[in-house]
Amino acid sequence: MNKVLKNIFTVAVVVGTSAFAKAQNDSITVRKIYTEALTKGQSYQWLDYLSNDIGSRLSGSLGAERAVTWTKAELEKAGLDKVWLQPVMVPKWVRGEAERAHIEGENARITSVPICALGGSVATKSVGLRANVVEVMGIEELKALGEENVKGKIVFYNRPMNDELIRTFQAYGGCVDQRYAGAMEAAKLGAVGVIVRSVTHSIDDYPHTGSMSYGDLPISKRIPAAAISTKGANLLSTSLKLNPELKFFYKMSCKNMGEVESYNVIGEITGSEFPNKYMVVGGHLDSWDLGDGSHDDGAGVVQSMEVLRLMKAVGYKPKHSIRVVLFMNEENGLRGGRKYAEEAKAKGEQHIFALESDSGGFTPRGFSFDTDDRNYNEVLSWKSLFEPYLIHDFTRGGSGADIGPLKATNDGIVLAGLRPDSQRYFDHHHAAIDTFDAVNKRELELGAATMTSLVYLMDNYIQKPAKLIQAPIKQ
Amino acid sequence: MNKVLKNIFTVAVVVGTSAFAKAQNDSITVRKIYTEALTKGQSYQWLDYLSNDIGSRLSGSLGAERAVTWTKAELEKAGLDKVWLQPVMVPKWVRGEAERAHIEGENARITSVPICALGGSVATKSVGLRANVVEVMGIEELKALGEENVKGKIVFYNRPMNDELIRTFQAYGGCVDQRYAGAMEAAKLGAVGVIVRSVTHSIDDYPHTGSMSYGDLPISKRIPAAAISTKGANLLSTSLKLNPELKFFYKMSCKNMGEVESYNVIGEITGSEFPNKYMVVGGHLDSWDLGDGSHDDGAGVVQSMEVLRLMKAVGYKPKHSIRVVLFMNEENGLRGGRKYAEEAKAKGEQHIFALESDSGGFTPRGFSFDTDDRNYNEVLSWKSLFEPYLIHDFTRGGSGADIGPLKATNDGIVLAGLRPDSQRYFDHHHAAIDTFDAVNKRELELGAATMTSLVYLMDNYIQKPAKLIQAPIKQ
Ligand SMILES: [Zn+2]
Ligand SMILES: [Zn+2]
Repeated sequence: MNKVLKNIFTVAVVVGTSAFAKAQNDSITVRKIYTEALTKGQSYQWLDYLSNDIGSRLSGSLGAERAVTWTKAELEKAGLDKVWLQPVMVPKWVRGEAERAHIEGENARITSVPICALGGSVATKSVGLRANVVEVMGIEELKALGEENVKGKIVFYNRPMNDELIRTFQAYGGCVDQRYAGAMEAAKLGAVGVIVRSVTHSIDDYPHTGSMSYGDLPISKRIPAAAISTKGANLLSTSLKLNPELKFFYKMSCKNMGEVESYNVIGEITGSEFPNKYMVVGGHLDSWDLGDGSHDDGAGVVQSMEVLRLMKAVGYKPKHSIRVVLFMNEENGLRGGRKYAEEAKAKGEQHIFALESDSGGFTPRGFSFDTDDRNYNEVLSWKSLFEPYLIHDFTRGGSGADIGPLKATNDGIVLAGLRPDSQRYFDHHHAAIDTFDAVNKRELELGAATMTSLVYLMDNYIQKPAKLIQAPIKQ
Repeated sequence: MNKVLKNIFTVAVVVGTSAFAKAQNDSITVRKIYTEALTKGQSYQWLDYLSNDIGSRLSGSLGAERAVTWTKAELEKAGLDKVWLQPVMVPKWVRGEAERAHIEGENARITSVPICALGGSVATKSVGLRANVVEVMGIEELKALGEENVKGKIVFYNRPMNDELIRTFQAYGGCVDQRYAGAMEAAKLGAVGVIVRSVTHSIDDYPHTGSMSYGDLPISKRIPAAAISTKGANLLSTSLKLNPELKFFYKMSCKNMGEVESYNVIGEITGSEFPNKYMVVGGHLDSWDLGDGSHDDGAGVVQSMEVLRLMKAVGYKPKHSIRVVLFMNEENGLRGGRKYAEEAKAKGEQHIFALESDSGGFTPRGFSFDTDDRNYNEVLSWKSLFEPYLIHDFTRGGSGADIGPLKATNDGIVLAGLRPDSQRYFDHHHAAIDTFDAVNKRELELGAATMTSLVYLMDNYIQKPAKLIQAPIKQ
């Protein structure tokens, strides 16, 4: 063996041995975490209470208020080092009476269809709104039609999700613009109302709400915007082909109520070595008002709480301070996420890692990472630790809406999002069927264990940004 | 560059280029298969009919008969080259009246609990059976107790599934002996009846049936065997701790009715190059009588039918003959699987590959292979083709019960089982909640596309056993 080769081999053996011991230790800890989660887990019982005893938690609602009080109390019971509330002003929007809608065909034949107001929409007049309908597949098509074809009409956005895409969040991303900005664009062309196909793969009777924005349209120009169920959308589309002159009627009494005070709920285990460096794990405590928000994002809330509980349960003392943050107002304002990042910046709290769970409580498949090459390569070296738990899907991309604001104020922060199986998510998302019975106990628990394992590994092996390494490495 | 290195690089480039072109072609075909399955798939509509219009399909039942007739007709409509029925004699067992059971405490206080007869069990006397109970965690513990502690009593097997195991089929395997052989072993020690904890992770009110056997016990020694729901089992266990003298009562009128004729349903696309070499894809057409057998194994039935339909839909002409086989009587006899292998052997039909889907219609995660190293290595080289569809889990192990008998009679056959996400499977398995509403359309369709892709790759790249290669390779 020549000298160069020999040196290479020596290094390989040394690195190999220490890597092996490290991997063995880690694999034991990870196994402990999963066992605790699957046999003595708390997340499912927590979610049962949050969903069935508290229920929906739209920002500014009584449910949101109760969720704040209850999660704070539960975190206190869990014996964390600190638990507190972080005040934040949030928009309050209320749905009012249940919406009504129907298609009016020839001879005044009426067919009811299920709709719901989009979050943030203005109401119709109290007698409702009745007008002809123009169907489009998106904002581009609407703009091409121009004012002469839109003025005085209800615009019906009917672009479906793309079923070919394996990752359903991509299909969601391909549709959500018509829900968010469709009313604003239609109003600019003189439309009197907007009906948007529910963003779901499933062909069923449930309208799916979600946030929308009028941008800087003056209040007088704002038009009522509703989601229609996919079956309703298909019926409306077919009816329009048979009778382009049909009228659509709907009535909504939703209302924007200004701003009210609410809270992010925060709990912390203080780090043993780096108490002033922070890792965050979180989900959002608010939900839409339909259903009980079990998948979106009750699951992420209880899983994040469980991460800290699991660390204590397996006797792991984190080196960095670890916080669970239950963010308020992800759905219609992101005020909680912004507030948390602002205050962290104001206090000079250096955040090195944040993980969000906001994609449903389904079987975890992996994570998406927003990070540099150095940390992504580190993460990839952990793949074999996750394989026994059937976690294979490590990608680069987005993380979570609530933790996003931390990026601008924390140089080199690693952001991550839990990626559960996404096939069923949009069946439930923002609809009356986002309920506790649609969550499987083991799937939820596996997600919590997977998150905890990642936080554990980050706590030990995260590659800190060069500028945060205080002393140069000595050889 | 020295000469040896240069040669290595040249080979690598040549192999690389051809492998690249091949991989590109394959990736286009696989994408076509998934797109067709997700946008124009037939499996979900088929399952809707099989589950909701036909319903449960226990061997020898009217449902099984209707399922045979209907699936044959659907395969004929799909335009396969051949469709036929293969007669097979199957055991017929009927449940009779709904079972009743209760715990009798002090002062004749009665608490009803949900039970169901295990498949193949004898009935109780018509007045029911009432006796003291001895709880054990398994057959070993029963044997250790011995006849003096068992005689005249009802044996209550209460070993739960091991929640720590990530692959739930392993946890099932760790419990199913008490259900299958528990009555036989208890009868040998003089027990008068057997109650078995349902094999499910979920703590609920549904008893889960399943097959059991008395071995060669004479009929006079056979004792009635029932499954109790997990909540019922927990209640019985707690009640026994408080009052070891309580009595358990149950009444069942199930009956073994001898044998009747039924059928495997078979469809074929004849191979363009090797018409006398066969590949099989299948599931089992029979189900238990509780629920409608949507996951077990309606899903496997419609997915297997869909494999052949998808091949035609994407315009793929297989080189080998491909058969869909809908096996009868997997649940309580495996007669269909045995019959198919026997006839194939008698006719000298060489089978080179068989794939079964019998683990539920959930998101596919991968396959388990029962094969030699050569073919397993070939399979591993396809991993990157499956990754875009989030199929990562390739393991060696079992395949499927129905295709198992082909192994003994087809040297070198590759056997495979589809491995969907297994977290929810045992919640539904063999219980009244194995119903169509528990199947997600996309998850089912993804399974069918994943199976079709594997069959396509096997059709092109399977490594045939040395003895089947007719001419020696010439250099
Ligand atoms: Zn959310
Ligand atoms: Zn089965």
